[in-house]
Amino acid sequence: MSQPVQPTAPASPAAIPFSLQDSLLILERTPALLSLQLSGLPEQWLRATEGPGTWSPFDVAGHLLHGEKTDWRVRISRILEHGESLAFETFDRTAMFRDSQGRSIDELLADFARLRAENLDFLRGLDLQEEQLGLCGLHPQLGRVSMRQLLATWTAHDLAHLLQINRVLARQYREEVGPWRQYLSVMQPL
Amino acid sequence: MSQPVQPTAPASPAAIPFSLQDSLLILERTPALLSLQLSGLPEQWLRATEGPGTWSPFDVAGHLLHGEKTDWRVRISRILEHGESLAFETFDRTAMFRDSQGRSIDELLADFARLRAENLDFLRGLDLQEEQLGLCGLHPQLGRVSMRQLLATWTAHDLAHLLQINRVLARQYREEVGPWRQYLSVMQPL
Repeated sequence: MSQPVQPTAPASPAAIPFSLQDSLLILERTPALLSLQLSGLPEQWLRATEGPGTWSPFDVAGHLLHGEKTDWRVRISRILEHGESLAFETFDRTAMFRDSQGRSIDELLADFARLRAENLDFLRGLDLQEEQLGLCGLHPQLGRVSMRQLLATWTAHDLAHLLQINRVLARQYREEVGPWRQYLSVMQPL
Repeated sequence: MSQPVQPTAPASPAAIPFSLQDSLLILERTPALLSLQLSGLPEQWLRATEGPGTWSPFDVAGHLLHGEKTDWRVRISRILEHGESLAFETFDRTAMFRDSQGRSIDELLADFARLRAENLDFLRGLDLQEEQLGLCGLHPQLGRVSMRQLLATWTAHDLAHLLQINRVLARQYREEVGPWRQYLSVMQPL
């Protein structure tokens, strides 16, 4: 008997389907990752950016903190309470430029860790089932979005900002790495 | 008396000059960051890639481990012992595809943490002064490189791979974030 023809490998591996448990595993690690990476770093590194209009690690920490206050949990509740009948508030992406003024990185990290823990306790307490993950809310710019998409975005948003912090830090040595620059794609101009 | 004219802001902020102390602060955090991010993650996430020929978080951990064995410390010693008279060995960027086979992520993380701690003890013990940071070695492809450039590259290389791990993980939810994809630059095709 001849072997069945194997399908050729896809050009790209399949994306991972949403899992609340996996997302919680990622979301709950972010405060410790952020603190471990930023607490005790010299101000020069914490305030470094990638150029005008870009964010420093200090700015990113403040942005994540603002999200815990006004974005993710509030939107989860909005979907559960109002569905698509009441749109989310627009999230202020740059609130940290005002709110973080005069604060230390350790204050931001502590506030973020406390609020993230509270928000994940809230999320676990909801014990969302498949049916609720399919509920939809109304995003003021994007329109109809599901609970599942909101939670996947919360997860990916954390990872994207951890990525950003590592990129900003790495790029500060763009001159010092000398000829190795050509081997480090992170050093290429944005 | 009129105020002197202020120079206009530069297009991009100045890069941070190399500091052995700052580099040590970054290098010594990597094992804990890596463990915190990867230990206990489901296999599906640890083995996820960005497509054919790209690396998973598991691969990156193995690559960093191989660097501790054969790259950074060995090259520091080579510069101190031979200067430019004996070129570095070529670093095998993909050795982990052989060496990591059959090993668990926790084994790789433990080995990496142990070797990194030993290598940083070695580096601290050298108590390198400005003069030694200016010593040069011979890179088999890049030619003349300084100790200072080697240490800056070690630092930036860590950060670049932490960046990569966060990018690979974030991109696994590229389907699940739905319409939010357009707000997340990390989701754009490479």
